[in-house]
Amino acid sequence: MIVFSNDLDKTIASFIIANGAAAMGRKVTMFFTFWGLNILRNPDGAGVKKDILSKMFGMMMPKGSKKLSLSKMNMAGIGPKLIRYLMNKKNISSLEELMDQAKKNGVIFVACNMSMDIMGIKKEELIDGVTIGGVASFLGSAEDSDMSLFI
Amino acid sequence: MIVFSNDLDKTIASFIIANGAAAMGRKVTMFFTFWGLNILRNPDGAGVKKDILSKMFGMMMPKGSKKLSLSKMNMAGIGPKLIRYLMNKKNISSLEELMDQAKKNGVIFVACNMSMDIMGIKKEELIDGVTIGGVASFLGSAEDSDMSLFI
Amino acid sequence: MIVFSNDLDKTIASFIIANGAAAMGRKVTMFFTFWGLNILRNPDGAGVKKDILSKMFGMMMPKGSKKLSLSKMNMAGIGPKLIRYLMNKKNISSLEELMDQAKKNGVIFVACNMSMDIMGIKKEELIDGVTIGGVASFLGSAEDSDMSLFI
Repeated sequence: MIVFSNDLDKTIASFIIANGAAAMGRKVTMFFTFWGLNILRNPDGAGVKKDILSKMFGMMMPKGSKKLSLSKMNMAGIGPKLIRYLMNKKNISSLEELMDQAKKNGVIFVACNMSMDIMGIKKEELIDGVTIGGVASFLGSAEDSDMSLFI
Repeated sequence: MIVFSNDLDKTIASFIIANGAAAMGRKVTMFFTFWGLNILRNPDGAGVKKDILSKMFGMMMPKGSKKLSLSKMNMAGIGPKLIRYLMNKKNISSLEELMDQAKKNGVIFVACNMSMDIMGIKKEELIDGVTIGGVASFLGSAEDSDMSLFI
Repeated sequence: MIVFSNDLDKTIASFIIANGAAAMGRKVTMFFTFWGLNILRNPDGAGVKKDILSKMFGMMMPKGSKKLSLSKMNMAGIGPKLIRYLMNKKNISSLEELMDQAKKNGVIFVACNMSMDIMGIKKEELIDGVTIGGVASFLGSAEDSDMSLFI
């Protein structure tokens, strides 16, 4: 599964699919690239040294799963709050719980090294338990897989 | 095939692919989730009882295939009209005809129960011939499938 | 691989995946449809005769790979320049180089005939080395394929 987007709605969908497949005993690898990297950023991460451009980029992009927007009906941040409220009311796990479940279920998180390079994101800025890999690592696991999605 | 988006352009693409595959004798399951649910809403559906939040959500989202917007160049509704006009002029089936063909060709429409729950959409609000299912039902059919797409 | 979008970021991702797979000795077919067709437009293409609607459409859409926008943080054209600058600085091939590599690596480019018809784009307006095909041609190659993505 390639997670390219950092929209809250698509991110939730990707983790629900990943957890569903893992619950069925399947091996799941999520490859986070481009905007998707932001999902893996640690909101409490200590500052690392960066050039100005990377710093600017870092500030303009959402820092971690709690800052994500909706792809539609975002309404200046009301939309994400609403979705999170409704999920909670319907007893559906929050995105952060889904991410924890995924880790516990053995879903492998890979951060795309080329995207990290372009966006100036360093390993220390990411949450724990993330592997760094390239497109070849993704293609390797996709090849052995029954299903591949670009989200 | 997971239909996550409710953009007119992506919806048309998904039904063209579905019909193409069905015409080649393939079994096709379309799993409508999140915004994609709106494609299945019956525009003439009678009102059902809902709480205020679900009612608001329902009013803000497109009610059925005829209300969909383009992902790009929507131009306040001119874009979709233009695309529909051009498709008609070039003798390509309209989205509604494509949907009818899909049903006749045996394409299975599944509406995601979790998304229905979150968005407060009830079965009675959907068009006929839609099954309700969860992510496990999607994964089950994806597993036996040659191809899976996230649209 | 279906390339539906003409966002710069998604286009780069699709060619990096295509080149990665080709480098691993895999056969790759990229099927360009809807907005994705614009990636294949030749910026220096001579004018062809068109009706007014097709001409308008043509003018409003990006003419070739150099005119593409980002799906997020486009900032009136600064975003794409920034991404291209950063890729260059990090010694990553530009989109145009990636496209050349793909061709050299034997990646097959197919332009969707139905989309060309709708948008009024003619074969002469596309870059060299593009095959014209329909959804059946895509499904045929997807069927024999280990992996299919909708980008």
